[in-house]
Amino acid sequence: MKKTTKGQQTRRRIVAEAAPIFNQRGYEGSSLADLMKATGLEKGGIYRHFSSKEELAAEAFDYTWAEARRVRLPDIDSESGAITWLKALIANFIDRRCPVAGGCPLLNTAIEADDGNPILRARVSKALRGWVARLQTVVADAAARGEIRPDIDPKSVAVLVVAALEGGLMMTRLERSDETLRRVQEHLNRYLDTEVAMSKV
Amino acid sequence: MKKTTKGQQTRRRIVAEAAPIFNQRGYEGSSLADLMKATGLEKGGIYRHFSSKEELAAEAFDYTWAEARRVRLPDIDSESGAITWLKALIANFIDRRCPVAGGCPLLNTAIEADDGNPILRARVSKALRGWVARLQTVVADAAARGEIRPDIDPKSVAVLVVAALEGGLMMTRLERSDETLRRVQEHLNRYLDTEVAMSKV
Repeated sequence: MKKTTKGQQTRRRIVAEAAPIFNQRGYEGSSLADLMKATGLEKGGIYRHFSSKEELAAEAFDYTWAEARRVRLPDIDSESGAITWLKALIANFIDRRCPVAGGCPLLNTAIEADDGNPILRARVSKALRGWVARLQTVVADAAARGEIRPDIDPKSVAVLVVAALEGGLMMTRLERSDETLRRVQEHLNRYLDTEVAMSKV
Repeated sequence: MKKTTKGQQTRRRIVAEAAPIFNQRGYEGSSLADLMKATGLEKGGIYRHFSSKEELAAEAFDYTWAEARRVRLPDIDSESGAITWLKALIANFIDRRCPVAGGCPLLNTAIEADDGNPILRARVSKALRGWVARLQTVVADAAARGEIRPDIDPKSVAVLVVAALEGGLMMTRLERSDETLRRVQEHLNRYLDTEVAMSKV
């Protein structure tokens, strides 16, 4: 068993404590004072473990994204039916809050990083690609099993679900009501049943 | 005719020059130095016209949002058909760039303001409500003319179009390719034709 050094433990603790600060206030909005307060460390104590604020923000993004994925991914196996799996994912996205405060880290970080900050931009691009690819694979595997209509493009299903959920989340957070996400959910579920699933004749 | 004073002119010029800074870098990411560089004014020259950075950011948001609406709204009258009007709006959203650099001001500002900044939050909430209400009215008017299926909820159509476009834009800006928005457009257009429009029997 590999031992975790005290330094590694401290590093992980800093990441976990900095994560909600970055997710709520953004990279630019998170001051060194905020990070010192959250971690209970002095400047030197933080920068002994990270070469820059950007490095800490990138690690914090990865941490928050892993937490968001953990709560969103359905508990059921995708082999038990892609339509059921996708509906569970949509429900989880709406019903379960990301354990790190501040909402979806993909949405938060994408908006801030799209016009700059190449390190953060690379992390969030990779997260988005992985997220779309995961959904796409579930649909493609289901197509191979004959569950999905043959004329459906798995990537289009994946992209639509992610876009509608992320856009709906932005609106829901602003409106402080999940009405928008409920309407989006209703649309996506109907779309999956009537357009994507192989019709039961 | 009401005369515009020199002070009003300067104020408008500051708003127009600060708008792309806020839209690209966000409220927190826009420093006084950035704003001074963009406007060519000293600190005192800016704050003679605005009581705070927050006030300037709120005015800049309104300016950018007005510009974004101007390019997105279809050139045709909504009376000439809600489905055609909505498709033109979707096409404009994708094909025409917001004249102010940095992407959609609604998306940018919503993400930054959702966890704080009440003045900006109020502006962007109002913009979102107005945007959804505009689409909703177009669909409701069309329903009254018998263009739309009677079981369609106009608000659900409005909310779905806005959510899918804004989420798709976030992905498109991150991917630096409009593939995602094209897939979203294809879905929305098909949805409008097959589920929303009164079928031509």
